[in-house]
Amino acid sequence: MTSFDYLIKIFYKDIDQMGLVYYSRYFEFFEQARTELLNNIGIKVSGIEESGYLLPVISATCNYKEGAKLEDEIIVKTVIEGMIGIKLKINYKIYRKSDNHLLVIGNTLHAFTDKKYRPKRPPKLFLEKFSFISPD
Amino acid sequence: MTSFDYLIKIFYKDIDQMGLVYYSRYFEFFEQARTELLNNIGIKVSGIEESGYLLPVISATCNYKEGAKLEDEIIVKTVIEGMIGIKLKINYKIYRKSDNHLLVIGNTLHAFTDKKYRPKRPPKLFLEKFSFISPD
Amino acid sequence: MTSFDYLIKIFYKDIDQMGLVYYSRYFEFFEQARTELLNNIGIKVSGIEESGYLLPVISATCNYKEGAKLEDEIIVKTVIEGMIGIKLKINYKIYRKSDNHLLVIGNTLHAFTDKKYRPKRPPKLFLEKFSFISPD
Amino acid sequence: MTSFDYLIKIFYKDIDQMGLVYYSRYFEFFEQARTELLNNIGIKVSGIEESGYLLPVISATCNYKEGAKLEDEIIVKTVIEGMIGIKLKINYKIYRKSDNHLLVIGNTLHAFTDKKYRPKRPPKLFLEKFSFISPD
Repeated sequence: MTSFDYLIKIFYKDIDQMGLVYYSRYFEFFEQARTELLNNIGIKVSGIEESGYLLPVISATCNYKEGAKLEDEIIVKTVIEGMIGIKLKINYKIYRKSDNHLLVIGNTLHAFTDKKYRPKRPPKLFLEKFSFISPD
Repeated sequence: MTSFDYLIKIFYKDIDQMGLVYYSRYFEFFEQARTELLNNIGIKVSGIEESGYLLPVISATCNYKEGAKLEDEIIVKTVIEGMIGIKLKINYKIYRKSDNHLLVIGNTLHAFTDKKYRPKRPPKLFLEKFSFISPD
Repeated sequence: MTSFDYLIKIFYKDIDQMGLVYYSRYFEFFEQARTELLNNIGIKVSGIEESGYLLPVISATCNYKEGAKLEDEIIVKTVIEGMIGIKLKINYKIYRKSDNHLLVIGNTLHAFTDKKYRPKRPPKLFLEKFSFISPD
Repeated sequence: MTSFDYLIKIFYKDIDQMGLVYYSRYFEFFEQARTELLNNIGIKVSGIEESGYLLPVISATCNYKEGAKLEDEIIVKTVIEGMIGIKLKINYKIYRKSDNHLLVIGNTLHAFTDKKYRPKRPPKLFLEKFSFISPD
């Protein structure tokens, strides 16, 4: 399994009136983390697009256990679960760095498409690298 | 069931490099729509907070069927499904206004807490108004 | 002078830990207001782009007098000051609706370019409609 | 003069339909950079607030020379110009890391206030550390 730990610091832009990170921001953090995971294994998102693909999100889920606060550092533990047909599944767990406390669990599902958003057979690299192995 | 249709127009701020609304923006749209639903029945979020409550999101899900584009108008059909203990469940369906095409389906779950983020019995108004009735 | 009043409601997504709208959000509000101004006189931003133009911001300024709060309604009074060569200058004043109090003053300057971000003579419509007349 | 170089990577969340960073995002980058500058010299924004101060932005300006693109790395060169009465002035220049090309120039002006947004004499530390020396 391909995984990556991505460190993010929380700034004022992220924090809402409750003094916690606004709920949609975690989906931006997920995007940053999966991009860095891919970059780390030599895959650039801009490169995927230059090859004629788009990789839109087709579902996203987040469960919020505890909110991060201003100037907290958090670690987004990101795991590519694998390919399911043309779909790529990615899981995320976010921990507060100071005490390793679990804050957020989430996942996103992505589909390979052409530039007109029609389903497209994924690049060979993805099929080979992230072939889905059922846990059973 | 309490429901509300909320119209949103899509601007440049919402659109990403694919020419579609960036995936986390829909969670902002959900927030706008549920706030307007509550405002429409006389409940202000700022009022909930002044009464000593917070109402953080504890889970959020979104399924993306098709992306909205620049200067599209979309309608967020919002339904309060009901209270489950201290939790409030809200469902959303987003349609493109021009052809009534379904773009996005999502839901959020919220918990009533005190100002220190500890679970708190919801205001009587919510318990009465949104008492959960199982579909069975 | 072409002007437009655009109403915006403030939601949780906009508010930071101070209980006020986060400072960069006003630039999104400016964008919403100028887009609506243009739409109102029959010009679509998507149409400008389909005609082979881009209209990037080349400078933006905002002066903050007082912050808007959750569930406030604000009015963005938007005025196209005019064209200066290939540049389009737009001014904004934001008022709180409830008491007509001035909250924010700002402006943006835009340049017409081709799709490779190179300066391009503006569409005739813009040159005619928004020709700059010096106040002297 | 207190200065700090802050590295930011550009993600999908930042990029608009033109393929460039959306203009308001740079103000978030400015905030990240000034927060890191302050953290770097031992000052936490959360600490400032715990001491009874707020430090809202009272003006912000940005000049855009060239847009950053997806997966670019940019460096925000941040300089505290100094205190002018109760106001703190900060300047920013953003360079693309790969070729050291200047992309953006901006500045922000902040005022120390109490928790009710009323002007307040700044903390001694700020007055000493960032006393404004006129260039004349």
